[in-house]
Amino acid sequence: MGSQSAFSDRLMAAIEAKNSRLCVGLDPRMADLPESVTRSDGLSVPSVEAVIRFCVAILKATAPYAVAVKLQSAFFEVLRAGGDMAYSALAEAASRLGLITIADVKRSDIGSTAEAYAQAYLGTPDAPSPFDAVTVNTYFGIDGVKPFLDAARATGKGVFLLVRTSNPSAVEIQDLRLEDGRRVHEAMADLVKQWGTDLVGRLGYSDVGAVVGATVPQHLELLRGRMPQQPFLVPGYGAQGAGPQDVVGAFDDRGLGAIVNSSRAIIYAFRQEPYSSRYAPEDFAAAAAEAAKDTRDAINQALRDAGKLGPV
Amino acid sequence: MGSQSAFSDRLMAAIEAKNSRLCVGLDPRMADLPESVTRSDGLSVPSVEAVIRFCVAILKATAPYAVAVKLQSAFFEVLRAGGDMAYSALAEAASRLGLITIADVKRSDIGSTAEAYAQAYLGTPDAPSPFDAVTVNTYFGIDGVKPFLDAARATGKGVFLLVRTSNPSAVEIQDLRLEDGRRVHEAMADLVKQWGTDLVGRLGYSDVGAVVGATVPQHLELLRGRMPQQPFLVPGYGAQGAGPQDVVGAFDDRGLGAIVNSSRAIIYAFRQEPYSSRYAPEDFAAAAAEAAKDTRDAINQALRDAGKLGPV
Repeated sequence: MGSQSAFSDRLMAAIEAKNSRLCVGLDPRMADLPESVTRSDGLSVPSVEAVIRFCVAILKATAPYAVAVKLQSAFFEVLRAGGDMAYSALAEAASRLGLITIADVKRSDIGSTAEAYAQAYLGTPDAPSPFDAVTVNTYFGIDGVKPFLDAARATGKGVFLLVRTSNPSAVEIQDLRLEDGRRVHEAMADLVKQWGTDLVGRLGYSDVGAVVGATVPQHLELLRGRMPQQPFLVPGYGAQGAGPQDVVGAFDDRGLGAIVNSSRAIIYAFRQEPYSSRYAPEDFAAAAAEAAKDTRDAINQALRDAGKLGPV
Repeated sequence: MGSQSAFSDRLMAAIEAKNSRLCVGLDPRMADLPESVTRSDGLSVPSVEAVIRFCVAILKATAPYAVAVKLQSAFFEVLRAGGDMAYSALAEAASRLGLITIADVKRSDIGSTAEAYAQAYLGTPDAPSPFDAVTVNTYFGIDGVKPFLDAARATGKGVFLLVRTSNPSAVEIQDLRLEDGRRVHEAMADLVKQWGTDLVGRLGYSDVGAVVGATVPQHLELLRGRMPQQPFLVPGYGAQGAGPQDVVGAFDDRGLGAIVNSSRAIIYAFRQEPYSSRYAPEDFAAAAAEAAKDTRDAINQALRDAGKLGPV
């Protein structure tokens, strides 16, 4: 099977077509959902139904402003079997709305186990999956990654491999200094670059992407230089503290090469200023739409200010 | 909530009571199941039903010889919603057979996401889970681990944290040498030891365990010294190449402190010598029982030879 490189080309084309670099993160934590979806006629709505109602409304409202959506598996797994059905159904709904869909599962295992995970989330040529890409943990090295690369190659899909995460304790292992002078996450970046070389598409990007957090902005710039062919999935924006200027380093000179994920700051915008004073909780979808539009525009403006995007 | 330390004490008591250090790994890959469970009256049995039939028979047959069972999540996730139900139901069945149950999910994420995973696999005091322990990936540092520690503390359950895995490419990241002289997996071991200090039970072991592969035997001895309070879950035995002598270093001088996982060499014993010449494929459960007994006995004999276990 030859290289199809479909994912990276589709992602970059979608970024240009929509002029958006925003990935909306669907983290439907039951305790955070507005009462308008969790209660109906004074009765509790079953959890799975409430999550579907909430997510479908968010997807429809934010799809015009986002290029991708990342569905966080944990919040579906905790709902057990019904959650699994919702996970796939929402990915299908997102695809129909024209969004690139990412299964944020961060799975980590080897051999036939990793093959089963790859099949579960990327599908096979005969049994397609509604997801365009999947996130994978890299602590195992290539043994844990190769089954996903093989599945990506066979299906024209993508993977995002953890390189430097956005959380404070990423320093404990990922930032340790090696005897050769590199930090652990730089050694990981060098591996990821190498793993992705034979899956490079027409636009110069690989179907093997990297997760690089925005909470330490200099990482983005350094790792962009270190992995010029990797599409970046950038967490840490919004609720975790990073802003538009912080993510500029993730992009190439044409404003391509990365998508920036924001989860809570978009989907729970109705709880946060400036949106909470303008929208009632039951108007959560409208608040999310405005937050998505504002985030898309703020990232694009920061890229324009940095000379990485032409004038409006 | 104070420390309950229930898991490590229960695990060590079970090892002593059964005089077994064997953990049977349930990796029910559809393509590997015998025809006697995948076909009935000439028709294909639905995948979920075949997996349940196979696993229940294996559990019943091997329970007398094993102390624990590890259910590999990937092979259930690939079956979608029905797989999720089977995953819980089989853990309940294993518990009723007196086995310690481990959810081998190797999840990796942070914050409210990791909380949702912890709740999904360890349950809560109000909504118990059929699993006694869960495996967790450690690349995120404490942010990815703490929600599991909190859940373990609240429910009296355990976690096994990835330190040094059993696969060949573990060398790519986990064995890199740091500027302070430690290898990455040794730095991880030092973190895991520290994270487990306030969850130590009566027998001196913590509810915070470590995954340490048997494929490089000197790791077990060195890491046992480095993490004296961590119960070890030891993969790599059997199909991955390690034998009884290789795992001796994982145990303390009383023959406690570790369980050794074998998956394919037990559950697919009917395909492998010496069992395949004595058992027909439809007698897969009897073959698994004999393989489990042989493995239990071989590990105990190696411990006796090393002076870590008294005479029979």
